[in-house]
Amino acid sequence: MGQQKRAIRTRRAVVEAAAAVFAERGYAAATIAEILNRAQVTKGALYFHFDSKAALARGVLEAQISPEYHVARGLKLQEWVDTGMTLAARLPHEPLLLAGVRLSADLQGRDEFGSSWPAWSALMVDYLTEAKDRGEVLPHVVPEETAQVVLGSWVGIQFVSQAASNWADLEERASSLFNHILPAIAAPAVLVQLDTAPDRGRRVIAEVRETSAATGAGAAEG
Amino acid sequence: MGQQKRAIRTRRAVVEAAAAVFAERGYAAATIAEILNRAQVTKGALYFHFDSKAALARGVLEAQISPEYHVARGLKLQEWVDTGMTLAARLPHEPLLLAGVRLSADLQGRDEFGSSWPAWSALMVDYLTEAKDRGEVLPHVVPEETAQVVLGSWVGIQFVSQAASNWADLEERASSLFNHILPAIAAPAVLVQLDTAPDRGRRVIAEVRETSAATGAGAAEG
Repeated sequence: MGQQKRAIRTRRAVVEAAAAVFAERGYAAATIAEILNRAQVTKGALYFHFDSKAALARGVLEAQISPEYHVARGLKLQEWVDTGMTLAARLPHEPLLLAGVRLSADLQGRDEFGSSWPAWSALMVDYLTEAKDRGEVLPHVVPEETAQVVLGSWVGIQFVSQAASNWADLEERASSLFNHILPAIAAPAVLVQLDTAPDRGRRVIAEVRETSAATGAGAAEG
Repeated sequence: MGQQKRAIRTRRAVVEAAAAVFAERGYAAATIAEILNRAQVTKGALYFHFDSKAALARGVLEAQISPEYHVARGLKLQEWVDTGMTLAARLPHEPLLLAGVRLSADLQGRDEFGSSWPAWSALMVDYLTEAKDRGEVLPHVVPEETAQVVLGSWVGIQFVSQAASNWADLEERASSLFNHILPAIAAPAVLVQLDTAPDRGRRVIAEVRETSAATGAGAAEG
């Protein structure tokens, strides 16, 4: 294994260990010692990549949005829905995403390390702007405003889902959110074509995994 | 002042002091000593009404929904919007409401004292069910589902507003939320009549205060 490849693996192991610890304990209670212990790397290796606990949190937040489960569709709005629904399907099972949620909601810590909200919001603005350029979205829609509404709603819906069911009903709630917001923004002819079913995220994930298994790419390499 | 009246005033002073302390420090860090000190009542008086810190939190949560700013309108959906918009206008300035938000979001504490979410959700279900009976709401709308979406969205939007602007943009965000959700649920002829402007809440509050000033009721007695 080349040196660069090893460095990338080490960095990823550290980010994943940090995510697990942040997700479990929150930022304030997390210690670099526990992250080191979980990552099974040397102190030197960790500090080579991240020089502080805040840098580790930033590393976790930067890793939130990955193109792994993005599939191009005929409708940009469907890609936007898919981003939300795959996130809803993955969140309860992925410490990296759980850590992102917990860190982003840390009103004390976010002064030190920021949050993933601006990146999610920017991603939504991109989808909505492209959808608007294609005529999928109603002319009066302002992508920045819609992105802020959905960002805020999503933050609350995942929080209420955590409190109510330890995230068991998150896909249901996410589906319901899209069903309540899309009529305000989607062109009628597009609206009827969108798939917002609660199991949409799981189906997209299965599709991606099948494709990557078939082509031999993906998990093993990824 | 009669004994019963005095008891009601004492109870209210205690609830307001508890709210201020819970809003500032959160449940875990709040102490009955500080609440006592702020309420300026005797320990005996406090314990007469609330026998524990959890009982104080429950008292604060029970006081969240008050009919004070409810005004009957021609459209039930407008009353529903008004409930949300007056809440958005009041929240940043009222420790009682800020405490309700903070206590309801306390995932550890809520096992002990509950949250205000079920009451808000039930209130919305009432509005939406009545609006549906009157034909203001589209036939396919399920009040319980819409209430859950709006509850979750509201929780997140106020949280994001707190993080982004210390609640300065809460009315803007609440208005934007209603604009994004009403098209999915309101009958078209009703939708165009609804006032969801960001200053809607403040106007309703001013209206209520003027009316109560004119009739001599309200604040002084309330």
